[in-house]
Formats: sequence, C-alpha cells, structure tokens
Amino acid sequence: MNPFATSEKSIQLIGESALITKIRSWLGPVSPPTPYGIGDDCALIQPSTEVEVITCDSLSYGVHFDASLDAADAGSKLIKRNLSDLAAMGALPKCAVLALLAGPNLSLDWLESFFSGIRNSCTHYKLALIGGDLSAIAHNQFSAVLTLIGEGQQLCTRSQAAVSDFIYVTGSLGGSRLQKHWNFEPRLQEGRWLATHGDCSALMDLSDGLGKDLAALLPANCQAAIDLPGIPIAEDAHRIAKSSANTALEHAFMDGEDYELLFTIKPDKAARFEHDWQQHFPSVPISCIGQIRRSQCPANYVDARTGTDFMRMDGFQHFQHRS
Amino acid sequence: MNPFATSEKSIQLIGESALITKIRSWLGPVSPPTPYGIGDDCALIQPSTEVEVITCDSLSYGVHFDASLDAADAGSKLIKRNLSDLAAMGALPKCAVLALLAGPNLSLDWLESFFSGIRNSCTHYKLALIGGDLSAIAHNQFSAVLTLIGEGQQLCTRSQAAVSDFIYVTGSLGGSRLQKHWNFEPRLQEGRWLATHGDCSALMDLSDGLGKDLAALLPANCQAAIDLPGIPIAEDAHRIAKSSANTALEHAFMDGEDYELLFTIKPDKAARFEHDWQQHFPSVPISCIGQIRRSQCPANYVDARTGTDFMRMDGFQHFQHRS
Repeated sequence: MNPFATSEKSIQLIGESALITKIRSWLGPVSPPTPYGIGDDCALIQPSTEVEVITCDSLSYGVHFDASLDAADAGSKLIKRNLSDLAAMGALPKCAVLALLAGPNLSLDWLESFFSGIRNSCTHYKLALIGGDLSAIAHNQFSAVLTLIGEGQQLCTRSQAAVSDFIYVTGSLGGSRLQKHWNFEPRLQEGRWLATHGDCSALMDLSDGLGKDLAALLPANCQAAIDLPGIPIAEDAHRIAKSSANTALEHAFMDGEDYELLFTIKPDKAARFEHDWQQHFPSVPISCIGQIRRSQCPANYVDARTGTDFMRMDGFQHFQHRS
Repeated sequence: MNPFATSEKSIQLIGESALITKIRSWLGPVSPPTPYGIGDDCALIQPSTEVEVITCDSLSYGVHFDASLDAADAGSKLIKRNLSDLAAMGALPKCAVLALLAGPNLSLDWLESFFSGIRNSCTHYKLALIGGDLSAIAHNQFSAVLTLIGEGQQLCTRSQAAVSDFIYVTGSLGGSRLQKHWNFEPRLQEGRWLATHGDCSALMDLSDGLGKDLAALLPANCQAAIDLPGIPIAEDAHRIAKSSANTALEHAFMDGEDYELLFTIKPDKAARFEHDWQQHFPSVPISCIGQIRRSQCPANYVDARTGTDFMRMDGFQHFQHRS
C-alpha cells in the first residue's frame, strides 16, 4: 500500500491536534492517560525497582520498507526491532515514545493501519506508548523513530566474552529480506533467561548480519574460529542463493535483519547450558557456531577446520564492499 | 552553511562505525562510556531517587532551520527546545538519546559543527548523551530526533489551573523567527522553582504561540480574560510588524517558538508570588496577562476590558488560518 495519498485523504487535511486525537484513539489502551502518557510537555515514567535501559531505532520509507509491505507490518516492525535490542541485554519492555516525521501528503488510511500494527505489538509485548512528536517534512517522505525504555534485574552486555568461550546463535540466519525482516519474534524471553543464566558471558542481537555483528563480541587480540558447517542457514537464504551470486552460507553469514540472539557460553558449562536451554525453550533451536581464540593476526574470523581467513573469499568480499 | 556537500566531503565516504567513532570524539565527555553510554544494544540509565519524565522533539532541515543558521546553533537548538519541555514541568535534565536521519550527501564538516553545538549545550546543561541511531534517508534530507529524560522531586502539570487563577508569562513574546527561535535560554531553573512553589497551579512552555498554547491550560467551561496591554511584546515582534500585515501584539500572541514559561497562580497568592519571583529571578521579567473565568461561550479568550472575542479580529484570523 502506498503511504502517500492525494490531498483529500492525507494528513494535511486535519490539524496537528486533531491528528493527535486520532492517533490516541487508534492506540486505545496502549496510550495511557496523562501524566503517565501523552498530553503534557513530558510524560512521567512509572517508577522502577529494576535497572532501566534505553534504546532508539528508526524506520524510514524507502530504506527499511517499501509500498509492498503492509502498513500494519511496518508499524509492528518498528516496535519489534527495538524490542530486539532490549532482548539483546536481557531487558523487558516498559514504555516508549514515538517521533513521526511525515510529508504532508501521508495517507490517513495508511497511517491508521501503521498504528494498528503499533497497537497490536504494544499490546502483545506489554508496552505503553507514553509520548511522542509529530513533525512535517518534505512530500513523499516518512520516518518514524522509536525510543524504548526497558528494565531488568540482571542485564548482560556485549563486553564480557573471554578466550575459549563458545559462540551460539538462536534460530537460523540469512535471507531475511524475503520475509523475516518484518515477520519475526523478538527474543525477549530468551534474552531475559540468558542474562540471568550464569554461564552466558556476552549477549547481543543480530541486526547487521553475523559477519558484522560478531566482531563486537570479540575481546582484544582475539578472533572467532567459525565452524562454517555449524552455521544454521535459513530456508530463505537457500531460496535467495538460487538467483544470487552468493552461496546460502554467505547469505547466512552476511545478510542483516536476522533479529536472532548471538551469545557466548563458558566452555566448561556448554553441555549443561545446552541441556538447560532445551528444557526452557524446546521450540527455539540454538547452534554452536564457533569459539573465541587468542590471535595476533588481524582477521576477526577464521575457518575452524583450516585456519584460513574465509572473509577474503570472493562471495564474502562482495558482501563487504556492498555494505 | 549548506548541510550538504559533494561526495568527497560527505558522510557516505566513511562507514557507519567510523562515523560513530567520529561522533563520540566530537561529543567528548558528553558521551559517557558503556554501559551508561553508546556502545551496546541499549544504554543503562543511571538510577534515580526522583520522578523521571520523558519528552521527544525533532529538528528538520527546511522546517526548523535552513542554511542561514549556523550548524552549531542548529545542534544547540535541538537540545534547548527539548530542555524547554523539561522546564515546562519543573524537571532537570538527566540523559538523552539522539536519532539522526541523514541523506548520504550530508557534509561531514557541517555535521561536526552541528555536534559542537550539541556538545556545548549538553555540557552547559549537564546532560549526558547516552545512545542513539544513525540512519540513511534520501539525498538532501536531514532530521534529528532527541529523546530526553529528566527528573524532579516535585513536578507541575498543565492540568491544575482553576477559576480565578492569574495567568503569567516569563520574558517577552513574538518575532522569534528573527533570532530567538534558536537564541534562547530554556527556563530550567525558573521551571524547577515554579514546580516547587505551592502557589503555582499549572505550568507549560510556549512553543506554538500563546494563542495556541494557552488553551491547554484552561479547565472545562472556562476562558481566559486577557489583559491585552499586559502582554509583553518582544522588540523583534515590533520589528517584524513594520513589514508584516499584523500588529506587534498579534505577533506576540500568535508567533511560535517563544520558549518562555506560561503558568497560573492562585489569585490570593499573586502579590506574595510576584515578590518571591523578584527575589529569586531579578533579571527575568514576568507579566500577568489575564485571569481564568468561568464561561459558557465557546471562545477560549476574551479581551478583559471589553469582553469581546478578539481572536475573531482580522489579524488574529489570518494567523489562525496560516497555522
């Protein structure tokens, strides 16, 4: 559905305050009453006894989605990609504020559908939308920025991975542009569980692709020895590989927007950890894809079987230049 | 200064992670180390014993500023207009996250200058920039969205004004587009003091113009009887009136971006309040511009001397249609 409309069906027809009233009615109970919601200069944040965290992510027409994506799925994607950042620290959602930057010809119908996706996701994940901003920008432009506050008793950062730790991912990777970039579940419960599980040393989510993101977990003077056959390849990565210049493995390693969790486990605890995981999340597969090793050479990743810097191979190079 | 540049001097030349490194160096100590800053999936928020509030505001090229504004002043404006929303509840700044939506041809030099304004304002107002997002949008487009968290022991909302309360504003109004839209001081200390002063019943800031904003303070079935000669007219409103179709008073009542405080005081406490104010803020004038009255007629504002609905006069009508 095209987000933009002729003037009689666009947001420029109604004033800002009427539009805010509409948005609040579209949001329903997801929009709490002031002072803990929209309607004053600021919104009060409910007090917390846990540690609070904050993250922020945007969604722009022509960049993160196009007219082929249902507006409700676009709204839902904005919420879920932010939630994935909370999952990546083991936090659960608390409240959010939303800034909309929209051309005057944005379609009211499209926007209502966009907010139905936001409302459904906020309801599902128990998230209150407590404030925001509306701003007019150029015609045919639309961006939304969500700032999300989460909380948790115990949080897990990216920075505590150590030599010999095993590297794991949830789910399967690659080919997300066919569908998964919007059709995914943020791994909130799994992240929360990992952050409180003493054997998990570092945790993050995969948004830019394993090949880019994993580097952030590596301690200084370390590299990841990757078990290439151990990388879980999504069916859509195989599908895309049939008509692309890359192999399915390359897509799994380099495509973005997987929204899976990437984490490290202390080596002597791996067997027990895998057993625990299976008990808690029997329907969510995990894969051990490698191990952290000390190294003096500049490559972040090597093939665990051969020791070669596989990122220098043709397909991977092609991806790196593209990104 | 034009925010956009030829390709060899634009942000597309350097990758996202190099740009984030540059931004952190431009921000200096305003950007605290992880986990209470940029560098992980979320940033931890420092614990607080006060009530936390949140607000969000954007700044877009071509809407809120143009090439005639110094880039540093644009950055500073983004911070200060958000701070004014904190002042409007009596909160003080705590931390912020910044989302940048930029065309690939955004100038690196311009962006560095923009961040110098952000850094200076954050330093001056004791604000930590703890997270954010970078996103590429269409060429020649630039928007920044700041989400700001503040805190206060005692906060004041818009909703407790009552019949007979006197209406006050700080400073002088109108003509902000000549300079004040970026060259202003958010009234943080004044807002904090008002929120803790028992005689102040309601508080907000003036961003859309007195004629629009004051309506938000009026209780149901009430109107504001305005002392029109009592409205403090800024010199720049007089300047603009010389070449516009409106009087200086109309500009003072209807122009936006004053970033002054608008508040109500219980009538029997007004004399004492004015004395207290003078003691605390001798260099910041306040003006009593009217009083809240019970009313059954639809007009939000009447001339206190004549009882007429002055918003129906030509100049005011012209403003209302424009907005």
